[in-house]
Amino acid sequence: MSDKNSIKSKRPIPKPPRGFRDYMMDEAIFRNGIIRKISSIYELYGFDFLETPAVENVDALGEFLPDDDRPNNGIFSWIDNDTWLALRYDHTAPLARFYAQNKAILPNPYRRYSFGPVWRNEKPGPDRFRQFYQIDADTVGSSQVSSDAEMCMMLCEALENIGINFSEYKFRINNRKILSGVIESAGLTSDKGDIVDDELFLKICRTVDKMDRLGIIGIKSLLGAGREDESGDFTPGLNLSSTQIDFFEAFLLKKDTWKDFFGEMRKILKGSSIGNEGLDELERMFSIFLASGYSESIFSLDPTVVRGLGYYTGPVYEVELNRRLIDRNGKEYTFGSISGGGRYDGLVKRFTGQSIPAVGVSIGLDRLIAALNIEKRIDNTADGPIIVTVMDKERYKDYHEIVNILRNNGLRSEIFMGNPKDLGRQLKYADQRKSPFAIIQGSIEAERGTVQVKDLKLGSKFSETIDSNERWKEHPSQFEVKLKDLVSKLKQRLEE
Amino acid sequence: MSDKNSIKSKRPIPKPPRGFRDYMMDEAIFRNGIIRKISSIYELYGFDFLETPAVENVDALGEFLPDDDRPNNGIFSWIDNDTWLALRYDHTAPLARFYAQNKAILPNPYRRYSFGPVWRNEKPGPDRFRQFYQIDADTVGSSQVSSDAEMCMMLCEALENIGINFSEYKFRINNRKILSGVIESAGLTSDKGDIVDDELFLKICRTVDKMDRLGIIGIKSLLGAGREDESGDFTPGLNLSSTQIDFFEAFLLKKDTWKDFFGEMRKILKGSSIGNEGLDELERMFSIFLASGYSESIFSLDPTVVRGLGYYTGPVYEVELNRRLIDRNGKEYTFGSISGGGRYDGLVKRFTGQSIPAVGVSIGLDRLIAALNIEKRIDNTADGPIIVTVMDKERYKDYHEIVNILRNNGLRSEIFMGNPKDLGRQLKYADQRKSPFAIIQGSIEAERGTVQVKDLKLGSKFSETIDSNERWKEHPSQFEVKLKDLVSKLKQRLEE
Repeated sequence: MSDKNSIKSKRPIPKPPRGFRDYMMDEAIFRNGIIRKISSIYELYGFDFLETPAVENVDALGEFLPDDDRPNNGIFSWIDNDTWLALRYDHTAPLARFYAQNKAILPNPYRRYSFGPVWRNEKPGPDRFRQFYQIDADTVGSSQVSSDAEMCMMLCEALENIGINFSEYKFRINNRKILSGVIESAGLTSDKGDIVDDELFLKICRTVDKMDRLGIIGIKSLLGAGREDESGDFTPGLNLSSTQIDFFEAFLLKKDTWKDFFGEMRKILKGSSIGNEGLDELERMFSIFLASGYSESIFSLDPTVVRGLGYYTGPVYEVELNRRLIDRNGKEYTFGSISGGGRYDGLVKRFTGQSIPAVGVSIGLDRLIAALNIEKRIDNTADGPIIVTVMDKERYKDYHEIVNILRNNGLRSEIFMGNPKDLGRQLKYADQRKSPFAIIQGSIEAERGTVQVKDLKLGSKFSETIDSNERWKEHPSQFEVKLKDLVSKLKQRLEE
Repeated sequence: MSDKNSIKSKRPIPKPPRGFRDYMMDEAIFRNGIIRKISSIYELYGFDFLETPAVENVDALGEFLPDDDRPNNGIFSWIDNDTWLALRYDHTAPLARFYAQNKAILPNPYRRYSFGPVWRNEKPGPDRFRQFYQIDADTVGSSQVSSDAEMCMMLCEALENIGINFSEYKFRINNRKILSGVIESAGLTSDKGDIVDDELFLKICRTVDKMDRLGIIGIKSLLGAGREDESGDFTPGLNLSSTQIDFFEAFLLKKDTWKDFFGEMRKILKGSSIGNEGLDELERMFSIFLASGYSESIFSLDPTVVRGLGYYTGPVYEVELNRRLIDRNGKEYTFGSISGGGRYDGLVKRFTGQSIPAVGVSIGLDRLIAALNIEKRIDNTADGPIIVTVMDKERYKDYHEIVNILRNNGLRSEIFMGNPKDLGRQLKYADQRKSPFAIIQGSIEAERGTVQVKDLKLGSKFSETIDSNERWKEHPSQFEVKLKDLVSKLKQRLEE
């Protein structure tokens, strides 16, 4: 309380909090369009919409983030009457809560999609915000490999529906069970017997995840005695034997074709039942892809895909835009993963004690929109409203009549609502709003039952088409028109 | 931290926090439709969309709620690195922050609309949630009465666009300046001279606001010596003299026509310049209404409308659905205000020191949707997906081919993704999803290149139309069809 009161006397700084931002018209409307297009594919595939509240009980959310193994970290939380509340950090944790709560009355399996903002209490960066948008689909209660395959194909179709085709991204697929199998085959099974040790599994996940950045040499050092980076910092290794490391090397090396992948992996995982289960699942997924017309060039098998550390238990996948993008200032952009998903079994179990198989996919809208924006797929040229200028403060009633006529005919328009003292200021406003026309009615026009129309976009239109002088004359940038002909005249010009 | 850890060992209860709820498909889609329809009117009137983040700095939000004069109350807030953050409690406070931040680059006046959830940390009740939805439009930087009138007319048009016409609501208008004028005329001016004392003004507002509930007798007691309610509780009064109270009585008594209102008020406010300014503004608004085709039956002048205590400084208005609604269980419902707004000058000043005139309107979507829902304007009968059943676990590839054909032809459909062990369970699922058809393909049909179609809605369709037996025979509820004819056959049945 005292903190708040000490602030009270100062004049507040008008800024959103660090890591938060405003979204203007064009961007928000573009995002809503993207959401509609992706939603329509999710619905076509049979998913129903669900909206959960922004706020959940902390204990219902769980104490881990999907890409983070540090508990109590990364979320916005506060105490409310002895209960910890928090903003949702994804759509999956609220889904698990909702499903556990309503299991008895929900269809089984339950197929839902959700979209909306999620919040992460992370250090903000130039392109890293603390509120961002995801659109997810999940099937809860299905252990069928068919539902894993469906997610991947639906993701392709959703991307295609927003204008991103196969050639523009890399779709990489793996199965967590294969990594478990390699650990088992390497003789790294847990003390408890047949189960792979969770902690070791996560450590190896974390190491494998660095493959992109460190390459096979770096990974081998981290699996062995450790690694010194360029700055001289030393990261201790996992101290595996060289035979064990060989297993991982064979596992990690890129295989060119699906056939090579399965052939090599069957050899490496010979003795591991969990590993072979993972391969079986992937083979079934890939046979569904082929039967559905998806060729080998679309989905690649990549053993380094692990999708964070959180909750995945089976097939996992990740989509990256595969171009390096150049923005209008010549700056090169690379976009990380724009989407991913996989199979998880443990989330509902936290509530009910019962393991429920589930599979889901999530698209991060912010990166996607940034990518599309840089490529100028966002249309920033939408018209502003027609401005009815104010020539006489005593005649607002007349200006309302004019604007009513325009609006009743579907023409976006407004009376200039600022201080009407000079016309120049009103025309400047119309310019700033990207208005197509300004309507002017002084007392002379009022008597004649006419208005003056200023066509504000005419100049740029003609300079684009380099038309003849003749047409210029036929289309003066300002003309007088009877009030009863105004709508048809404006519509005619808008269509030209 | 210890609070969170002590929770960790227990199994969490799968419920949203108190006062929060989930929104299912029908309701959320209905809400989005309402938002689209209202937005389209706001856009037609020249407003641009703006989305601010859910989280703001507490000092930017201000320490008061529009309907609440208690500071630091009613918001969700928490500390983040020495800064108090909070969830927005309306769309107006973030607008003031945004405008103050971007004033130099925004058009003047700035016209924006916003929608989305807002959060209030209040005691939840049966129809009182702590997350709810508002859709607002504001013009910042306009002191023209024309912009007040525009808001009222736009509100009518927005309501009409969602199917609520003039006859279904009461639209009451007042001007805060009139109340100031009555206070001045009653000789209750501040010690500081010509300005009405803020504290007294708020106390009188609060009293006048109770007119609906207590009637003129109750209000007179509260303005005088005080009032004892039925339970014997005593509320101390403002101890005004009987002459002063007479002023308020004359002011509060209902006037039947606009003419009566202005006539009576001019008499009461004879000596008050602020009071007459308020009347002038209303007269100009009402002449615009008349010129725009809005008759006296739509807008009523009501001196008891004060719109909470927060920040309004000029014209204020409120819309109530005027029916008492009966739900399907025979329970009677009354809906309070579904919308309101007015003129406010102080919000931006908090940041810049400069007084900026502004006018805004807000529609509360939750009550509106509850009202429309009770009247069953929500369509809950939308079809679920077509279900492709699984007869043979080895033939998922074939089922994917079938579902692909359906989806490629725009038919919402899915393979049954649960445990396929018996068909009964799959048909039960289809029923629960309100599926129009179940598609069945066993090995015999597969060999023949056909599928069986179960028409799941046929029974109810025919019982509704009480058709002849002949037609029943032509339309068996299950039939076999060649795979290549499946789409056309299903579309034909859907159109019937």
